Amino acid sequence: MAQKPAIPRGTRDFLPTEMTKRNYIFNTIRKVFEKYGYGEVATSAMENLATLTGKYGDEGDQLIFKILNSGDYLSKVSSEVLNEANSKKMSFEISEKALRYDLTVPLARLVVMRQNDIQFPFKRYQIQPVWRADRPQKGRYREFYQCDVDVLGSESLLNEAEFIAIYDEVLSNLGLTDFTIKINNRKILYAIAELLGKTDLLIAMTVAVDKLDKIGWESVNKEMEERGFSEEDVKFIQSFFNLAGSNEVILDSLKPLLAMSTVGMKGVEELQTIFEYLHYFNIKKAKVEIDLTLARGLNYYTGAIFEVKTNEVTMGSIGGGGRYDDLTGMFGLKGITGVGVSIGAERIYDVLEELALFPTTLKTITQILVVNFGHDFDKYTLPILSYLRSEGIATELYPSSAKLAKQMKYADDKKIPYVLFVGEDEVKTQRYKIKKMANAEEKYLTISELIAMVLG
Amino acid sequence: MAQKPAIPRGTRDFLPTEMTKRNYIFNTIRKVFEKYGYGEVATSAMENLATLTGKYGDEGDQLIFKILNSGDYLSKVSSEVLNEANSKKMSFEISEKALRYDLTVPLARLVVMRQNDIQFPFKRYQIQPVWRADRPQKGRYREFYQCDVDVLGSESLLNEAEFIAIYDEVLSNLGLTDFTIKINNRKILYAIAELLGKTDLLIAMTVAVDKLDKIGWESVNKEMEERGFSEEDVKFIQSFFNLAGSNEVILDSLKPLLAMSTVGMKGVEELQTIFEYLHYFNIKKAKVEIDLTLARGLNYYTGAIFEVKTNEVTMGSIGGGGRYDDLTGMFGLKGITGVGVSIGAERIYDVLEELALFPTTLKTITQILVVNFGHDFDKYTLPILSYLRSEGIATELYPSSAKLAKQMKYADDKKIPYVLFVGEDEVKTQRYKIKKMANAEEKYLTISELIAMVLG
Repeated sequence: MAQKPAIPRGTRDFLPTEMTKRNYIFNTIRKVFEKYGYGEVATSAMENLATLTGKYGDEGDQLIFKILNSGDYLSKVSSEVLNEANSKKMSFEISEKALRYDLTVPLARLVVMRQNDIQFPFKRYQIQPVWRADRPQKGRYREFYQCDVDVLGSESLLNEAEFIAIYDEVLSNLGLTDFTIKINNRKILYAIAELLGKTDLLIAMTVAVDKLDKIGWESVNKEMEERGFSEEDVKFIQSFFNLAGSNEVILDSLKPLLAMSTVGMKGVEELQTIFEYLHYFNIKKAKVEIDLTLARGLNYYTGAIFEVKTNEVTMGSIGGGGRYDDLTGMFGLKGITGVGVSIGAERIYDVLEELALFPTTLKTITQILVVNFGHDFDKYTLPILSYLRSEGIATELYPSSAKLAKQMKYADDKKIPYVLFVGEDEVKTQRYKIKKMANAEEKYLTISELIAMVLG
Repeated sequence: MAQKPAIPRGTRDFLPTEMTKRNYIFNTIRKVFEKYGYGEVATSAMENLATLTGKYGDEGDQLIFKILNSGDYLSKVSSEVLNEANSKKMSFEISEKALRYDLTVPLARLVVMRQNDIQFPFKRYQIQPVWRADRPQKGRYREFYQCDVDVLGSESLLNEAEFIAIYDEVLSNLGLTDFTIKINNRKILYAIAELLGKTDLLIAMTVAVDKLDKIGWESVNKEMEERGFSEEDVKFIQSFFNLAGSNEVILDSLKPLLAMSTVGMKGVEELQTIFEYLHYFNIKKAKVEIDLTLARGLNYYTGAIFEVKTNEVTMGSIGGGGRYDDLTGMFGLKGITGVGVSIGAERIYDVLEELALFPTTLKTITQILVVNFGHDFDKYTLPILSYLRSEGIATELYPSSAKLAKQMKYADDKKIPYVLFVGEDEVKTQRYKIKKMANAEEKYLTISELIAMVLG
């Protein structure tokens, strides 16, 4: 009996109508990245399990899709291990490879492996799927695309400023008009903990603050107290987070508060420098705002951190990133600083859909459908078909002489804008009936006029 | 201690220099497919193991990369099965998903699942990686891209003719000038077996003939005899395979030989019709040749079969395909005929490399590097940087005021064609020194002149 076909839970297929929209987003992003001098890389979908293990925390480790070794993989497993039936332990005996979990660890691996083949500063972008064994839910998939842009080996804050310009350009080009790029600096967060003499609690603080949007101040403060900050400490922390006003005002307010912390003053200075650079860029739509509560969970950030939100629809962040000082250290290459951001292409898809911002031209692959009146007409239709294509116009001849209604329905379903009739009258007069599907308007045109109309 | 980073055997990373070339090939292909009305689809990398198992023969089944179930996957395995330590049996207990092995089975699955969302004839293309646990060797990888174009739900031979036109256009556009598209029809091969009263040996015959290039006629004939054909039979088969001459001559010679076989005459007629269609297409470079020995191993072909070879370098086939009458039957949807071809993009990469056919412009991402003379010059360089980008020119400012030699080496390594100097003199005169890296020629130009030169 035939199988009922299905795909794995949490994964998706994309039909042409979706693919043209996805490609539109990816190509818009790609074009901006390249204008800023970033080159594309691709890494293998499979990584050695050892490359990934331990990089994403215990929780992350469990979400890595592991690949079963080939051949008689059990022959190397001792009967003791088999009998123990410990899934976690067994995994390392029967699996050596796993699916890419993000694009960051593969980047670090790639840079270390190919350090002699690449030019530093290494400006790379990567748009590829990643896989996570997460519980699927609305908007969360087990296979999804990441879209990362990073520069490694340059400490210049020009890079940070350029990422803001890149966000601005990508999102403006996609038609968004109201979005905010939040910026903060990990050094300021560090300095707050430092001034309290509790740098060991830095992570506790950032993890708590990271939840602000979800749980609110009361719960954040409670969590910080539970994690080892005193009530006094929390008030002190709050005095920073309560700072308000323009970016300049916030920076000016920070200076006296952080004066005792070299690291903190460095953080303020870095933010200031980024704004100086930005002054020279022609930022189109982005609101760039310092947000001292922006923490971003990942420990590896050491300088500027970013997060991007659209103000037009309700949606989590559509981008984020920051500077990290030792990404490649995990693979033995020390002293390479880097900074990078990620663009949430899949969420942007939903935003553009909701705001109806996808260009209507994306619906169209084929521009002209030539109606098929049967084999006798091949000698007229085929040269026209071939000629229209040679002019770069995507054209189809309906492949059989089906009923006209069926052929018209095909054009309609496929959103083909023009239908061309090559009938006896047309052949005689060399003027062909063109039906514009959008309004059913019919015209008689020469082939040159038709081409001019479609290309025009 | 830091890990020594590595990637799994048989997999690859691609740096920007390779990616621009790969994208050039994919985009050339993509453009032609769309001109013929094909839309792109993408399927999930993971398929249910049950979707793939049994579709590629026993040998194929063993090359499928299986994914270990998440969580405590051993808890559901009985201790009997554990103790048995049978890897094959165990796989089905601990793995429910697997990596895509080709693009054909996922196409069949997709079409059956989404039959109400798609328009028939369904013209789709797909360019995605597939994974096979093959023994890696030169030119054979465990992860590689396939590039398939198929139409489902149309029996018209116009499709076959169009695939020949597509091959011609793709390969011509990539700069190939001498290549052959071989064509045959499975019905003719069937008829030969039928005339011998041995249709049960059809597969034996095609499998043997398929090896012709590798083992020669003597061995092919020997294999056919071993598989059940008599010496007489083999002579009869040879009388077909010895037919030579132009396509017309071969077709004319076949007619009396196959007159007794309805299926065989159908095959001849199909080839004839395809050539009639082709007559109207403007074939640029392809030699289209009937090759009766072309068998293609896959059993599911039922009509026309194709294979493409370049005559410019020694290389296996760079494309192939054919018509299949019941691909979706395996998932319960009967009566959908299809025809499709595959373009061997990875082999074409090697061909273009060997013939030095990649456009030299592919080496360049960034067009202009602006030399960084330090922070004091930011007020001059940054507006220029921003302006050049707004004109669509990929431009970088070197991110720090490193020694000039280092900045020049960066431009050189990254194949950036122009270096722009914004020094004190330049700022005064508004004419900027431009160094053309290819010949070290230096010019003083206004920014408008520079833009005209780079875009021109």
